[in-house]
Amino acid sequence: METRRIKLTVAYDGTAYCGWQVQDNGLAVEAVINEAIHKLTGEEIQVIGASRTDSGVHAEGNVCVFDTTTRIPAEKLSYALNMRLPEDIRIQKSEEISADFHPRYVHSVKTYEYRIWNNRHDNPMLRLYTHFVYYPIDIDKMKEAAECLVGEHDFKSFCSAHSQVKTTVRRIRAIDIFRDDKDDRIITIRISGDGFLYNMVRIIVGTLLQIGMGIRPVDDMERIIAACDRGAAGPKAPAKGLTLVGIQYDEC
Amino acid sequence: METRRIKLTVAYDGTAYCGWQVQDNGLAVEAVINEAIHKLTGEEIQVIGASRTDSGVHAEGNVCVFDTTTRIPAEKLSYALNMRLPEDIRIQKSEEISADFHPRYVHSVKTYEYRIWNNRHDNPMLRLYTHFVYYPIDIDKMKEAAECLVGEHDFKSFCSAHSQVKTTVRRIRAIDIFRDDKDDRIITIRISGDGFLYNMVRIIVGTLLQIGMGIRPVDDMERIIAACDRGAAGPKAPAKGLTLVGIQYDEC
Repeated sequence: METRRIKLTVAYDGTAYCGWQVQDNGLAVEAVINEAIHKLTGEEIQVIGASRTDSGVHAEGNVCVFDTTTRIPAEKLSYALNMRLPEDIRIQKSEEISADFHPRYVHSVKTYEYRIWNNRHDNPMLRLYTHFVYYPIDIDKMKEAAECLVGEHDFKSFCSAHSQVKTTVRRIRAIDIFRDDKDDRIITIRISGDGFLYNMVRIIVGTLLQIGMGIRPVDDMERIIAACDRGAAGPKAPAKGLTLVGIQYDEC
Repeated sequence: METRRIKLTVAYDGTAYCGWQVQDNGLAVEAVINEAIHKLTGEEIQVIGASRTDSGVHAEGNVCVFDTTTRIPAEKLSYALNMRLPEDIRIQKSEEISADFHPRYVHSVKTYEYRIWNNRHDNPMLRLYTHFVYYPIDIDKMKEAAECLVGEHDFKSFCSAHSQVKTTVRRIRAIDIFRDDKDDRIITIRISGDGFLYNMVRIIVGTLLQIGMGIRPVDDMERIIAACDRGAAGPKAPAKGLTLVGIQYDEC
């Protein structure tokens, strides 16, 4: 039987999960997808994910691949799998891809959005998908501070201390910070880059928020980068405000 | 002790509730607010709500009032009550109002938004707050059909058959239908009016959706109004897509 490699683009509400990857505690998104594929094809599958999002982090476009001998047309798999998935996980697209495509080793640009609800009181309908901040936020200060993060830098100050990686140098392509046109209480921090360290986006956001609230001066950001010390940066912002919007691969 | 009347502006995620009003089945939003006021003031309170939203319907700005002898400043009550409310209910504003203000008898304009997720696959993060429609929707047809609804009409065709009201004449101020600027898969139907019959917004939306999907012609809408018969209109759209955005009173 012919084996094909299938690429899935996956959206999920991370609220109920321990994250993408199987852990000792709680239900993992990848485990639920493996089970849905098993129910559909009878095959014992372990999908390979592009981004191992943390507990409580959401996705509009995470990516995973798996190999299958099923004869169901690739583009129909999304519909067949969605019938077997809980409603907080939805395959947005399914397509055949070359057998040597690996979602973590092929170069890609990832885009994250961190959303903040900035008002006197929390918003029940956004409570699971935004971080509620009571204090006034000056986004012009955040924009100014974010400028020096763009480009290639050693982001050691923005990496969780217990992470083990060869290099903490990464390249941020762009950071956009804006209030929603229709409702200026919603602030979005949109960050795209070639790769991110563990908790990097959330630590950047936590630091930018301190600057936006006036707890730190704008020019602290340059000093924090130069320090190469996790202790120099601000706190990690809560998981629920973070969404992996999409992953753009060079070759597909 | 001096009694004051307090007006609360209330936001809630209706997912977990049987609606605003106490019913035989399930937990009512008003019951949870009554309990929070009791915990705070020790008083046995029954708030009077402006709009008795159905099970699963959300609110950004429903209104209720109650009388209290508490000495807590009116504008601080929102903070004190929010500490005693579950996170899916949040008082957005608390203020003192004249003792004869009744949220259902004082003239007001209510604004509702019905939100649709129009895509091949459902959206996990919007699944509780939008109605998922797979089929292509032509919103220009919906806009054209909606024109004849604006103004004062007998809306008997858009009223649940088991409703008992003196008159089914109501006045719709405006209907706006638009796709989101940033994500055109999100369609919003925004309706404001002096008053609405039971299920009227959801039946209007269900009928407009049939027109947008091409199941009914645009000029059906005039015939449906003229029929004064619930059987002439389309189905009731699901509750979860509906949000009571706000209530504007003439005198406050």
